[in-house]
Amino acid sequence: MHNYLETLPFWKELTDDQKQLLSTHIIERSFQKGDILNHGSQECTGLEMMVKGQARIFMMSPQGNEITLYRLLEQDVCVLSAACMIHSLTFTVSMEFETDAVILLIPKQILQIVSLQNCRVKDFTMELVADRFSSVMNTMHDVMFSSNEHRLAQALLTQMQLQEATSLQLTHDTLAHELGTAREVVSRLLKQFQRDGLLQQSRGCITILDEQRLSRL
Amino acid sequence: MHNYLETLPFWKELTDDQKQLLSTHIIERSFQKGDILNHGSQECTGLEMMVKGQARIFMMSPQGNEITLYRLLEQDVCVLSAACMIHSLTFTVSMEFETDAVILLIPKQILQIVSLQNCRVKDFTMELVADRFSSVMNTMHDVMFSSNEHRLAQALLTQMQLQEATSLQLTHDTLAHELGTAREVVSRLLKQFQRDGLLQQSRGCITILDEQRLSRL
Repeated sequence: MHNYLETLPFWKELTDDQKQLLSTHIIERSFQKGDILNHGSQECTGLEMMVKGQARIFMMSPQGNEITLYRLLEQDVCVLSAACMIHSLTFTVSMEFETDAVILLIPKQILQIVSLQNCRVKDFTMELVADRFSSVMNTMHDVMFSSNEHRLAQALLTQMQLQEATSLQLTHDTLAHELGTAREVVSRLLKQFQRDGLLQQSRGCITILDEQRLSRL
Repeated sequence: MHNYLETLPFWKELTDDQKQLLSTHIIERSFQKGDILNHGSQECTGLEMMVKGQARIFMMSPQGNEITLYRLLEQDVCVLSAACMIHSLTFTVSMEFETDAVILLIPKQILQIVSLQNCRVKDFTMELVADRFSSVMNTMHDVMFSSNEHRLAQALLTQMQLQEATSLQLTHDTLAHELGTAREVVSRLLKQFQRDGLLQQSRGCITILDEQRLSRL
């Protein structure tokens, strides 16, 4: 586990005591595919690092509609779990594990001690917040100004990268939650993509036939 | 001008030398209603404080569509002007002055010197970023999950507060840019609101008749 701590950009700036404090209090947590965590101003656990696995961070309406904001991949740090460090962060988002996953948690109290002693730890959190802020702004830009056709094509290309395959295990529901749109919209567009020879649909599976044209949509 | 510097939450934590440095390098800039500034990773001026006036921060598509993200009122600090302080902030937004305005600017180089010497200055920037992040997340939530009817009603109520009046100087275009929707959508909804007795339209002016019902939409 200590190897992972050493990948944190502020690790080298810490004193031996601070390193010791982090090392002894770090917690390893396992999650299963499909598990969901809520992050918001109420629940503050600490700083979570994704050691193994993949999760999507999404926003949900009271009616249960969803939109994916960004993804956490291996070695990514979840800044929202550290919302306690930032008083002004007042929104709530959810995290769904898309694979079985292992997370390392630096508990809130420990992080606060080290953070008060060392500016670099705060800098790190700040850069993370700014980075996620940028991701969300990009998502918002897409939602506002890009066609559903373009966004669906992009979502399919992202899934090709994540699954490292051209035959994707994906339901229309999953894609609708990804884009924050209705399943009917996704189904209609996928049919159109199939007619245009861009992909082939079969039960629970979408096979990409023409990545090039898809990326130009 | 120094009075305004003293309202900054980190002011009391500064040394006399740091206070002196800020005071001697602060710049006052005036803007006219309608002026537009772009903020992004390219252009970094420093930390801008709104001393007098009102501006909206908005996102624009290549096609010229707009959506308002949040507003800067008197004494607010524009964190995007300090994007240079945060490497990960990579998006571009624009700022339109809605009234004549006066802004105080702490130039980038000066802010960086003080920021490196004093953690509290960075804390302040970080809280600001998180605060704006929260605003944008709320806007995104509304865009995704609220009806245009609800959002238009909220925009009208916000304008009542800003203009401190029930007769609002507002074009349909302005409201469309506010919501990130088409002018036709706004016009149709305003007609419906008028039929329902919520407001009265005349040339370039919308008079709110029933604030209570509007706030329940």
